[in-house]
Amino acid sequence: MRPSSSPSDGLFGAITSRGGAAAAVRDEAWLQAMLDAEAALARALAATGTIADGDAEAIAAACRAEDFDADAIGAAAAATGNPASPLARALRERVGGEAAAHVHRGATSQDVLDTAAMLVAHRALEPLLADLSAAAAAAAELARSHRDTPMAGRTLLQQAVPITFGLKAAGWLVALAEARDGLARVRDERLAAQLGGAAGTLSALGEDGPAVLAAYARELGLAEPTLAWHTLRGRIGELAGALGVAAGAAGKVARDVTLLAQTEVAEVVERTPGGSSAMPHKRNPVAAVATLACAEQAPGLVATLLAAQVQEHERAAGAWHAEWRPLGALLETTGSAAAWLRQGLEGLEVDPARMRANLDATGGRLGAEAVADALAPALGRTQAHELVAGIAREPGDFAAALAADPDVAARLGRARIGALLDPAAQLGGATAFADRALEAHG
Amino acid sequence: MRPSSSPSDGLFGAITSRGGAAAAVRDEAWLQAMLDAEAALARALAATGTIADGDAEAIAAACRAEDFDADAIGAAAAATGNPASPLARALRERVGGEAAAHVHRGATSQDVLDTAAMLVAHRALEPLLADLSAAAAAAAELARSHRDTPMAGRTLLQQAVPITFGLKAAGWLVALAEARDGLARVRDERLAAQLGGAAGTLSALGEDGPAVLAAYARELGLAEPTLAWHTLRGRIGELAGALGVAAGAAGKVARDVTLLAQTEVAEVVERTPGGSSAMPHKRNPVAAVATLACAEQAPGLVATLLAAQVQEHERAAGAWHAEWRPLGALLETTGSAAAWLRQGLEGLEVDPARMRANLDATGGRLGAEAVADALAPALGRTQAHELVAGIAREPGDFAAALAADPDVAARLGRARIGALLDPAAQLGGATAFADRALEAHG
Amino acid sequence: MRPSSSPSDGLFGAITSRGGAAAAVRDEAWLQAMLDAEAALARALAATGTIADGDAEAIAAACRAEDFDADAIGAAAAATGNPASPLARALRERVGGEAAAHVHRGATSQDVLDTAAMLVAHRALEPLLADLSAAAAAAAELARSHRDTPMAGRTLLQQAVPITFGLKAAGWLVALAEARDGLARVRDERLAAQLGGAAGTLSALGEDGPAVLAAYARELGLAEPTLAWHTLRGRIGELAGALGVAAGAAGKVARDVTLLAQTEVAEVVERTPGGSSAMPHKRNPVAAVATLACAEQAPGLVATLLAAQVQEHERAAGAWHAEWRPLGALLETTGSAAAWLRQGLEGLEVDPARMRANLDATGGRLGAEAVADALAPALGRTQAHELVAGIAREPGDFAAALAADPDVAARLGRARIGALLDPAAQLGGATAFADRALEAHG
Amino acid sequence: MRPSSSPSDGLFGAITSRGGAAAAVRDEAWLQAMLDAEAALARALAATGTIADGDAEAIAAACRAEDFDADAIGAAAAATGNPASPLARALRERVGGEAAAHVHRGATSQDVLDTAAMLVAHRALEPLLADLSAAAAAAAELARSHRDTPMAGRTLLQQAVPITFGLKAAGWLVALAEARDGLARVRDERLAAQLGGAAGTLSALGEDGPAVLAAYARELGLAEPTLAWHTLRGRIGELAGALGVAAGAAGKVARDVTLLAQTEVAEVVERTPGGSSAMPHKRNPVAAVATLACAEQAPGLVATLLAAQVQEHERAAGAWHAEWRPLGALLETTGSAAAWLRQGLEGLEVDPARMRANLDATGGRLGAEAVADALAPALGRTQAHELVAGIAREPGDFAAALAADPDVAARLGRARIGALLDPAAQLGGATAFADRALEAHG
Repeated sequence: MRPSSSPSDGLFGAITSRGGAAAAVRDEAWLQAMLDAEAALARALAATGTIADGDAEAIAAACRAEDFDADAIGAAAAATGNPASPLARALRERVGGEAAAHVHRGATSQDVLDTAAMLVAHRALEPLLADLSAAAAAAAELARSHRDTPMAGRTLLQQAVPITFGLKAAGWLVALAEARDGLARVRDERLAAQLGGAAGTLSALGEDGPAVLAAYARELGLAEPTLAWHTLRGRIGELAGALGVAAGAAGKVARDVTLLAQTEVAEVVERTPGGSSAMPHKRNPVAAVATLACAEQAPGLVATLLAAQVQEHERAAGAWHAEWRPLGALLETTGSAAAWLRQGLEGLEVDPARMRANLDATGGRLGAEAVADALAPALGRTQAHELVAGIAREPGDFAAALAADPDVAARLGRARIGALLDPAAQLGGATAFADRALEAHG
Repeated sequence: MRPSSSPSDGLFGAITSRGGAAAAVRDEAWLQAMLDAEAALARALAATGTIADGDAEAIAAACRAEDFDADAIGAAAAATGNPASPLARALRERVGGEAAAHVHRGATSQDVLDTAAMLVAHRALEPLLADLSAAAAAAAELARSHRDTPMAGRTLLQQAVPITFGLKAAGWLVALAEARDGLARVRDERLAAQLGGAAGTLSALGEDGPAVLAAYARELGLAEPTLAWHTLRGRIGELAGALGVAAGAAGKVARDVTLLAQTEVAEVVERTPGGSSAMPHKRNPVAAVATLACAEQAPGLVATLLAAQVQEHERAAGAWHAEWRPLGALLETTGSAAAWLRQGLEGLEVDPARMRANLDATGGRLGAEAVADALAPALGRTQAHELVAGIAREPGDFAAALAADPDVAARLGRARIGALLDPAAQLGGATAFADRALEAHG
Repeated sequence: MRPSSSPSDGLFGAITSRGGAAAAVRDEAWLQAMLDAEAALARALAATGTIADGDAEAIAAACRAEDFDADAIGAAAAATGNPASPLARALRERVGGEAAAHVHRGATSQDVLDTAAMLVAHRALEPLLADLSAAAAAAAELARSHRDTPMAGRTLLQQAVPITFGLKAAGWLVALAEARDGLARVRDERLAAQLGGAAGTLSALGEDGPAVLAAYARELGLAEPTLAWHTLRGRIGELAGALGVAAGAAGKVARDVTLLAQTEVAEVVERTPGGSSAMPHKRNPVAAVATLACAEQAPGLVATLLAAQVQEHERAAGAWHAEWRPLGALLETTGSAAAWLRQGLEGLEVDPARMRANLDATGGRLGAEAVADALAPALGRTQAHELVAGIAREPGDFAAALAADPDVAARLGRARIGALLDPAAQLGGATAFADRALEAHG
Repeated sequence: MRPSSSPSDGLFGAITSRGGAAAAVRDEAWLQAMLDAEAALARALAATGTIADGDAEAIAAACRAEDFDADAIGAAAAATGNPASPLARALRERVGGEAAAHVHRGATSQDVLDTAAMLVAHRALEPLLADLSAAAAAAAELARSHRDTPMAGRTLLQQAVPITFGLKAAGWLVALAEARDGLARVRDERLAAQLGGAAGTLSALGEDGPAVLAAYARELGLAEPTLAWHTLRGRIGELAGALGVAAGAAGKVARDVTLLAQTEVAEVVERTPGGSSAMPHKRNPVAAVATLACAEQAPGLVATLLAAQVQEHERAAGAWHAEWRPLGALLETTGSAAAWLRQGLEGLEVDPARMRANLDATGGRLGAEAVADALAPALGRTQAHELVAGIAREPGDFAAALAADPDVAARLGRARIGALLDPAAQLGGATAFADRALEAHG
């Protein structure tokens, strides 16, 4: 299992900031990403002949976050409204000499910060996608192992008809794999470099702007945008949406786990369960609970980022600055959900016997629909349904009650009733669908 | 221009429900979509040999919304929690005869409602995407017509450096076209048929489930899912995210228009402006205002749909039902934003003379950065910047003040100062970037 | 029980628009509220001597919604951006004569629409608060009836320690009553008349503005604001927040009900349960499910209304118009949640025997904490906790296992163990706290 | 001016975490608040005779955050799902001796964390409310100083009719003061102690539970709840709503400031404006921009907290844990908005001459409504409106054009026209309303 939260995550981080994404959105990571943008700019300027290679390398060599004081840069940010200009000043000082004059050349603060945001997102997505993939793989393994394990399917939290645990786990697999694929697409296609200068014209670069932009994007390994997207924030919005989908997928699986782990259901248990501060007998499904806690923080953050798309003219008066924290928080909480879910699924113990016992607890009533369907040709669907529903509502053995009913008995013998009520006979395409999922994503 | 809101949109609909999406999410459209699902199911059952072709056609022939009473079906929905079961009952009655027994066969209510939701979304996206495309085309036309029209680029609502109106409109084009492309992708790849039966196993169809599902999806023109997605709601989440991005793109453009139309800026005016109930002199940019009003309703609805992804087991106890209204409202409000924006951009009058006048209103100070850059090699960047900033802050003619400053005069002659302050010389890649946008999306 | 949704609620209204609030936010209600504002204005103008009493009464007499064509007014609204100006025009025509000139005098469209919004909210809150109160009363009745019914307290969905159902229902009571009180406070203190004229100065009324405002507010039965709040939207924000709290309270209770009604828990059942389209044996807790469905739509709408507070200058360019639909939808969905919850709680059947059986299902393990506490003085807290936890984790009879453990046996006899494991001995202040709740809110 | 963000706020904190609330929600503050809860519990147990005074004081004396390792406690939190149990363990070790056994006695983790959340909120609200009050006072001062300064009222971003800057600033005052009052009410009435033990019964305290709760609440200076609110989260919801309203009020004022500070409007400037990394001539309204950036992050966080109200049974499986970060973030971002706004308003320079110039820029057209009103008795309202609108739309001097129109000239002489177009004559109740605001909140 990959290292989760680090020892310096504070009081809540081990719960709300699990996984590698949290570290990837910290200040040090932002600082390095901003410096990477400055380095890439210098090299792009050299590649297009605007500055000398030596100057570019002198700048690039100085772009090491550990040599800068994030707090001092941050404090200076209050004057101009963002930390990119004090960083450029500090970088110029550090570079010194002639090369200093070429630091940040042609760029505006937002070029550096937006590019850094894309790099931060790209880097945070690496562990996040790995955790999502591992959680999907754990779901796939559960689907394979329990391909033929019958259990109660539940709708509106009521037992409905039999399914297999393999099908349920295959559903988890599909949700997680599709969410991962969606996020990976956004990462590959939509995370783009930003370079426009003060108002998107790259005016300081004369006619070289487009060429510098192309070289800069190549240098960074980010997509090259058609034009500067300082106030065209669809890229952020798409990323936010895909993260919200991933968080929701994780939350769905975790909700199922918490429900299956209920004392009264007890079909699964987390292998490394949490204890309780006071109750020795409890085996809390901490991983699933924490997954939900993290996942539930996502939709509000997505809404903030989507609302922030409405940005004025060539640089927004607030909506841009409103993105920084929510974007980091969204990557962090979605990453934490994925990391917790991975842990929870990798350690999930399944109790097929209990699944079977729960399935039988209604005395075969989950086969009521099958019996009604079998009676429908003779009695009419509505009448058949009502007859069987009436018998199902009475307590006691369902098979016996059916056999004792004259209207049923006239059409179905005991053996046929027994066959209809056998969960194994009611599984329909459960296995086939689970196999499809494993084939597609396993 | 396509017809916008219909005369029966009530008090607010002409403003908040413009465009074709509103009609596509109304009850009648949902009802027809549910019936289309039932018809497709019958035909899929026939195609796979489960029922006779004649029965399927008898069912399909009865699936006409105008023959059903939406209010009566809706009233009956309270008992079971959704309108699909009363509709199936009503359809059975209408079909009559032997075929009636095959209505809704193998399906569960959610199969019909989820499939209907996908059809409703697909149909609502048609006018919505057409309006987005038309708005993008209008932006492209503005970008072409004003390829060389200089105006002030504005950051933090302050004049910054010159740009062209062509570049600004090209940015609008990119935002709208990329949002449209994202939505179209979701429509084509992610809107899928739903068919799983009571708990996703299609148990009533025995081993034919997967084949019926494939035929059903083909019949509907929707994607075929790997397995039932009753509680795997990433498809809804992706659709919501893409709609939120589109609403944000429309909102960004409209915000710009309202700002450019301000009395004190007056660079654009809507050709068919709204009047005012009391103020004869006002020319309100009603289309842009309404676009913003509609766009700003999207993020909260997206958050609701993303949060609703956390659904229990095989059918959710509430979160599924929580999707119906927000999904319709989100399609409607995003569609309305697109329709208004199209109208606003197609009728936008641009005043290049006023743009030029505003650009000149600061006495050439938008060229301050260019002057400082020109002085930087000699004075050092920081000192050059501070010197020029000091001069820029004094009132009066900027060029004259620069020429009168001994530090400036020692390095730059009047002619050079004049050249540096000429907006046309500061446009950098404005035209090149606008051309790229037109090439990509025009 | 009060009438719930009307027969014309369409496909989904019986589920998502239950209760009286839905009708109170319909177009007809808005139209009447706008006319009520116009009538109140006319009477206020007469009361302050600006116009003749006869003219005021002529205007007021014409302010009947049934005489106006909402669709026609709505269609005309697209030109000016709101329906208040076409309504004023239509009202003038209807009034005719000299009095016509005094229609809408001194007012701006937003005065009429904002006042109407407050009236609509006030009127929608009446049934909403009644339903909340009735739901609270039903919870109180459950708390009284089951004052001494022991059941498992559950934390993280695991059985924890015994509580009473009385305490649980008392908690529901507190949540619902406090939410109701908060909403009632907002209604009484913060729903205010709006009257400012074009830009908040009531310029057309000269120096009479404040006096007219006071008379207008009195006439309407709404609070009198200090000044016009055209772009000061805290009132809307507070209303939204209080509705969001009420929806959350309803959702919490409903979540509990759905969990208690699970097949495997079966401690409650809704007396008028929903059936299922296909499964005769199911007794779906439709009221609780629908409550959740409605409650979960609230937070996103609240966010929209809070975000819309950021309004420009003296009238917003979009954010005001963005409030209309979400405000209605929020009142409707919260009201529907309250109406459903009332129905669900009023018809809730409780099964004390099943509660006791579930409590005993862990073989007394819910008393593990009590045993550990009793051993703590002798063994130390941590050691006592670990010892008991180890015994609890083994299957089999817990009391016997405790008695068989030498470390336990040395300190606690069988009788003491039995007493410690008796749920009745572990209830602490359950009854006292429930009584406090009944005293405060019952 | 009070100290704003500290030097250790990292890269973004000086912008997004200004003001004292940020420090009040940090881990150290949470840790101390948790320890304060433990100390209050010990003292309450002593006050009710459950434990000895000496033991209580020994515990209380150990409750100093600086003696605990937040990172270690946080790391241990992953096992149980919250940091309160490892903290209790660490506190027991630190206290030692007999008293150690009484640490955390009767409480559950959530008691300590919820109480800490309330203390954290209470303490964060102190600087937040102080900043809101100071911002309101600055608005009041502006309202007083510019009581008679005419300016253009603007609706839909178009000049509408004259107002005074005093009235605009008075509106800001009202919004800020009402938001502050709402928040103060929540602080005083709704921030409550939490003490319920494992499932709300305080079972370990036998019959002493209610008495201990009362003493505990007194000790903490928090409200005493009727019963444990472990899963009744209306208090959090109300706090969130009030914070969202306050953020919106700050955002509204800041939006106005950014609009007034536009280059083309230039009616205000921030006295300590931000520079720009590259543009020497710009005077960015950084405080207003940062206020908006902070305010716009609030609604999404409010939605998260409202959605998290739906909590299961006696302790939620995720929704509780989902509150911690958003609650802190919401206090922080709202506090930061208030701190920035205070700075912005305290340093706001107003330019009455420019206000007058902008007012005159339409050649008196803001008086068009007054002229139309004056003509209405003779011409009919609609005709008068259309006549004047037509004249207003023509370029050139408005007064002259009116006088030249025969229909106007027949009714109004030049002097009357001049009087009607005089802004000072059109101010209506501007001053009276501003005075009311100052009286109510100044």
